[in-house]
Amino acid sequence: MENETVGLVVHSVGRTGVLHQLTGVIARHEGDITTVEILDNWPAEARTYFEVVLSAPVQLVIDDLKKLEIVRRVDVVKTFQRIYGKRIIIMGGGAQVGQVAIGAISESDRHNIRGERISVDTIPLVGERELAAAVRATARLPRVKLLVLAGSLMGGDISQAVEEVRKTGLYVISLNMAGSVPDAADLVVSDPIQAGVMAVMAIADTAKFDLVRQQKRRY
Amino acid sequence: MENETVGLVVHSVGRTGVLHQLTGVIARHEGDITTVEILDNWPAEARTYFEVVLSAPVQLVIDDLKKLEIVRRVDVVKTFQRIYGKRIIIMGGGAQVGQVAIGAISESDRHNIRGERISVDTIPLVGERELAAAVRATARLPRVKLLVLAGSLMGGDISQAVEEVRKTGLYVISLNMAGSVPDAADLVVSDPIQAGVMAVMAIADTAKFDLVRQQKRRY
Repeated sequence: MENETVGLVVHSVGRTGVLHQLTGVIARHEGDITTVEILDNWPAEARTYFEVVLSAPVQLVIDDLKKLEIVRRVDVVKTFQRIYGKRIIIMGGGAQVGQVAIGAISESDRHNIRGERISVDTIPLVGERELAAAVRATARLPRVKLLVLAGSLMGGDISQAVEEVRKTGLYVISLNMAGSVPDAADLVVSDPIQAGVMAVMAIADTAKFDLVRQQKRRY
Repeated sequence: MENETVGLVVHSVGRTGVLHQLTGVIARHEGDITTVEILDNWPAEARTYFEVVLSAPVQLVIDDLKKLEIVRRVDVVKTFQRIYGKRIIIMGGGAQVGQVAIGAISESDRHNIRGERISVDTIPLVGERELAAAVRATARLPRVKLLVLAGSLMGGDISQAVEEVRKTGLYVISLNMAGSVPDAADLVVSDPIQAGVMAVMAIADTAKFDLVRQQKRRY
């Protein structure tokens, strides 16, 4: 049971302060919380999902959680990392986002069949301000490894946001397009389907594509 | 400032117990935490993202967070709901997931341009056990409104999982396919592109499509 990541769904009552009480029990067992989702927070029913790295046996933590007056039930479930795995985010114009998604979904299908877990998430968006905010927000989303910018014209604050998220360790692929975003990206690809395929290859452990060796290339 | 949802990124040090201390401050201000993301949890740098519904002025909460010895900095940011909005999840075989995604991305583009925020998230997966686990896990993911099952044969425990997540309020659209999943879904659609378009119409406030009125229909 050493250093195992476990998924726990805690059913409780109350609203304000629930998380504070639950995390107190986990902290006492020196559990390292890596993920939290607030599933419901109604006074009559609060459900909270935790992924916790534990060195203690999980049953001890569950027993202590159940001792809290607010806790009704605790379920052990599979973790998101095991189910949805790494994430690629594709954003930009609908026409191009759809084509990049086709490439990325087909390619991740091939890797997931061999035991990988890669999800392909998308949002069609328009506008410099909206896209820059969405790029910056990817650094706050869990399990995101790579971002594809798919459009015909992107620059200004979007390029600035690309530079910022690259510093946090995220890879960025850009379609070949007008504006300064291609210059800010790790890699530029003209064909949207190939951009999607390369995005998956770059983060799959089952592929041999090294984005670091491809830095600033254009295809 | 009443009952405003604010996004806060808290930069701190330490690992175990960080969340317990931060949520203690928020609970004292009767803040209702709706989202938490653990961005980093290294001893030298922990970054935690909260979305909190506050009746108190946000600056008071920030000031009190900063009084904690472990806190280095607090930034106010835009919330995920404002940036990524509602989510549709498409899962199943790569060929069909890609086509449903094309329909959903094109349609959400049209709604997002009019002020909606709809994201289209996908994972190509194979196997009854894997798909059933992924269906069940959607009920633990934030902002998910609708699930599309895209494949050629799905049944058994996947159908059971579909019944379970529908009880939590999630809508499920199924492609017309072999197996019992179409019988378990809210709506069955033969054309994958139309399935994607209808999925977006069903959750868009800017559309007039009512899935409740479409219950158990087949197209």
